[in-house]
Amino acid sequence: MTGVDVVRLLRERLGDRVDTSPGARDLARADKSGHAAGGAPLAVVHAASVADVQETLRIAHATGTPVVTRGAGTGLAGGANAGTGEIALSVRRMDRVLEVRPDDLLAVVEPGILNADLDAALEPYGLWWPPDPASREISTVGGNIATGAGGLLCAKYGVVRDAVLAVDIVLADGRLLHLGHRTVKGVTGLDLTSLVIGSEGTLGVIVGATLKLRRRSTAHTRTLTAVFPDVRAAARGSSAVTASGAQPAIMELMDALSLAAVHRLLQLPAPAAEAAQLTVQTDGPGADAEAEQIAAVLTAAGGTVRLAESEAEAALLWRIRRSMHPAMETLGTTLIEDVSVPRSRLPEMFDEIARIERAYGIRIPTVCHAGDGNLHPNFVFAGPEVPPEIWEAADELFRAALRLGGTLTGEHGVGVLKRRWLADELGDDQWQLQRDIARVFDPTGILNPGKVFDR
Amino acid sequence: MTGVDVVRLLRERLGDRVDTSPGARDLARADKSGHAAGGAPLAVVHAASVADVQETLRIAHATGTPVVTRGAGTGLAGGANAGTGEIALSVRRMDRVLEVRPDDLLAVVEPGILNADLDAALEPYGLWWPPDPASREISTVGGNIATGAGGLLCAKYGVVRDAVLAVDIVLADGRLLHLGHRTVKGVTGLDLTSLVIGSEGTLGVIVGATLKLRRRSTAHTRTLTAVFPDVRAAARGSSAVTASGAQPAIMELMDALSLAAVHRLLQLPAPAAEAAQLTVQTDGPGADAEAEQIAAVLTAAGGTVRLAESEAEAALLWRIRRSMHPAMETLGTTLIEDVSVPRSRLPEMFDEIARIERAYGIRIPTVCHAGDGNLHPNFVFAGPEVPPEIWEAADELFRAALRLGGTLTGEHGVGVLKRRWLADELGDDQWQLQRDIARVFDPTGILNPGKVFDR
Repeated sequence: MTGVDVVRLLRERLGDRVDTSPGARDLARADKSGHAAGGAPLAVVHAASVADVQETLRIAHATGTPVVTRGAGTGLAGGANAGTGEIALSVRRMDRVLEVRPDDLLAVVEPGILNADLDAALEPYGLWWPPDPASREISTVGGNIATGAGGLLCAKYGVVRDAVLAVDIVLADGRLLHLGHRTVKGVTGLDLTSLVIGSEGTLGVIVGATLKLRRRSTAHTRTLTAVFPDVRAAARGSSAVTASGAQPAIMELMDALSLAAVHRLLQLPAPAAEAAQLTVQTDGPGADAEAEQIAAVLTAAGGTVRLAESEAEAALLWRIRRSMHPAMETLGTTLIEDVSVPRSRLPEMFDEIARIERAYGIRIPTVCHAGDGNLHPNFVFAGPEVPPEIWEAADELFRAALRLGGTLTGEHGVGVLKRRWLADELGDDQWQLQRDIARVFDPTGILNPGKVFDR
Repeated sequence: MTGVDVVRLLRERLGDRVDTSPGARDLARADKSGHAAGGAPLAVVHAASVADVQETLRIAHATGTPVVTRGAGTGLAGGANAGTGEIALSVRRMDRVLEVRPDDLLAVVEPGILNADLDAALEPYGLWWPPDPASREISTVGGNIATGAGGLLCAKYGVVRDAVLAVDIVLADGRLLHLGHRTVKGVTGLDLTSLVIGSEGTLGVIVGATLKLRRRSTAHTRTLTAVFPDVRAAARGSSAVTASGAQPAIMELMDALSLAAVHRLLQLPAPAAEAAQLTVQTDGPGADAEAEQIAAVLTAAGGTVRLAESEAEAALLWRIRRSMHPAMETLGTTLIEDVSVPRSRLPEMFDEIARIERAYGIRIPTVCHAGDGNLHPNFVFAGPEVPPEIWEAADELFRAALRLGGTLTGEHGVGVLKRRWLADELGDDQWQLQRDIARVFDPTGILNPGKVFDR
C-alpha cells in the first residue's frame, strides 16, 4: 500500500481532520530541539476525539504505517518529529478539562491542554497540578506525561509520575485501555500508568489523564538570590542548602554565560564576569522563615544574598531565569542538554563541564535545577545541524554524568537525540528488556519507530 | 529432574543456606493472610547475598523449578506462600543498610530490612522513609516494595512508588539488573522501577533498593479524635476534612465493631454502641494550627472532638488504631480486605458494607485510611479456610468498590486471594497485556506462578 492509499483511507474516515498541506507537514518535522526529520510526513491528523485516534491507529495498523504522536511540538529530544512515510498524529486539539473534583483532589483532562490553560482552569477551585516545565505557557500536559517533563518544582513537589493517577491510551491496533486508578492508592496488577509516563509515544497514544492535584496552599512565596564569584561556588552553595534540611520549592542556578546572555536580552546591567547566581523560592506558611534560613546558609557559603522586597522584584528575578531559552536563541542554534546527577555531585559536574569547555575550545552556558540536580548545558553552534565535534563534547558530558551516578536525561527524554547513548546507561540486558516490553504493546513496531530504542 | 535433584543442586552451591527442615518449609507455606499453600516447598533458601539469589535462580531456571520470594511473611494476600515443588527464596537475612546520604536524601538498602530497623538507622541522620504500613515493626522494605504496601501516611507523603528511586532485581535466569536512578529526576527509557513496585515477585527478585528520603521535619505532631454517632457520619466528617483543604498526615476511621473489639483487648471502657471514631494526626511547623482547623471542621460535621493534651494521650490513641489486627485475631480467623475508593465516595462505600452485612447476616468490622480512601473491611470466621459465603460477600464488596470508581486492592496486592477478580478490574485486554509483560521478564513462568495472573 502506498502513502497515497493511506492518506485516502485517512480522509475517508476522518475527513478534514486530515491535513496534507505542505505547511502543516513541514511543521510536524520538528520540535524545539533544533533537530528535524529528513522528510515530511504523509499527513497530519488533527484528532478531535478518542475515536479519531482509534481510527487513525486502526488504519496505521492495517497498512503498517508508522505513527508519530505530537502535542504542541515543544519537545527537546526530537521525539515527536515525523518524517517520510509516517502519519503525524496531533492530539493538540483534544484540550478539554473533563472533570475537576476538589473533594478527591483530581482532574480528568485530554492530552492537548496546555499547562498554563490547565492552571487557569484549576485556579478557581484553589487547586494546582505541580509539574511546572519552563515551557509551561506552550507545552501540553500530554507531552509532559509522554516525556516525564518535570520542571522546576520536582525536589519539593515530585516528578510527573508522582502527579498522575491514571492514563487512557490507544494501543497500536486501535484498542483503548484505561490504566491506573482514580484512588490515591491502588496496586491491582502491574503499574502500567508509570510505564507509560516517559515512554515517548512508543507504547501507545495518551488520550486522557487523571491528574493528582494539590491545594494552592503555596500561594505565599518568598524569593531570594545569591551571587557567587564562580559557578563552582554557587553549586557548593546549593548543595549546602540541600544538606541544611531546608526545602526550597525552587532553586535554580545560572552560570556566568547564561546570566550575561539573559541580561543582554532583557537590557539589564551586565553582571560581574564569572559571577554565577542561585535564585531560590520558598512557599507555604513557613516561606518567610525558610527564606531567612536559606539566606543564612548561602551567606555562610560565600554568596551575596538579596531577599526580594516586592512581588515585582521577585517576578523580575524569575523572568531572568525563564528567559534562558530566548537568550540562547540569540546566540545561535542550541543543543539543550539535560543530564542529572545526585545533588552532592553538582560541583564535580560543573568541573567536568569546565574541562569539556577547555578540551573542545567551546563555551557551554548552563542552567541547573539545583534543588534536584538536573543540569541543562547549552551547546551553541551555527547552522541547522549539530556539528560532529559538538556531539563529541556532548558524549563526554553524558559519560561524565554517568560516572557521577547520574543520568543522560532528567526530563527531556531520549527521542532521537540520545538514542545512541541509551544502552550505555541501561546496559545491554536492560535495553533489550525494555525494547521487548515495548514490543508487547506494539508488536509490529509502528509507534514512533526510530525513537528511543533505535541504536 | 525431581525435587530431590533440585535440592541436591541447591545444597552443592549454597550449602547450609538451604533449609529443608519441616518447620521452615511449613512456615513458608503461609503469610499473614490466613491462607496457606496446600503443600510445603522443596526447601527454603536463606539468601545472604545477591550472589546467593542469582545462584538460586540459575538452578531454578535450569531445572524449571518455581521460585516464591519471601521477606518476613507479613503479606495479606498469599503472594509469598510457597507450596509443593517450589523453592521458597527468603531474602530476610539480606538486611543491611548499605549507604545513607543525607546530602542526596537517599539510602541504599537490602530488601530484608524491617521498616522499624530502617527507621532506627535513619533517625540519627534526621532522615525518614515515609512508607508506614501498620505492620512496620515486622514487615520488610523489600516486601513493601514488592506489594506497594503504603500504610497510613499516603495522602500527605505519597505511596511507595513515590519513595523509591531505583531497584536492583535478579531476573528469572539469574541475571542482575540495576533499574532506575540515584537522581531525583531521570527519564532514560521506560520506568521499570515503577513496574517492579507492586509486581509481587512475578518480574524478578528485588535484591536492593535506593530509597528517596525526607527530613524528619515532621517531628512535632498533634493528635485529635472525633467520635460520631455512626460510621456514615464519621465518613462524612473525613470527607469534610479533605474538602476543607486541610492536609492531615494521618486520618484513620474505626467503625463501632473495630472500636469495641480493640477496647476489649486493651481493657479500656467500652465506647458507645454504634459510635465510630476518626483519629487524626497533623505534623510539621503548622501542626497546631492545622489540628485546630480540623477540629473545627469535625465539630461542625457533628463530631465530638478531643485534642490530645499530652504525648502519652496521643500514644494511647494510636495504640488503639494499631491494635486492630490483634483485636481481630481474638474474634476468629480474619480475611482482611483492602478496597480503595475516591475519598468523596467513602460514605457510599460504608453504605455498601452495611448492605452486605444485612444481606449475608454477618458483621464486617472495618478500619479505613480515610485520608486516602483505603478501607480494610475484616471478614471474621471460624476455622482455617475462608468459607464460600464469605467469598461471596467479599465478591460483592469488590464489585461495589469498582462501581464507586475504586479498586480491589489499595496496598495489600493481588497474591492468590484476589487473582480471580483481577481481570474484572483491568479488563481482559489489559489483563492479557500485563501477563505478556510479565512473560518478557520470566519467559518460562517460574517466578511466583499461580499468583496475580492466574485465573
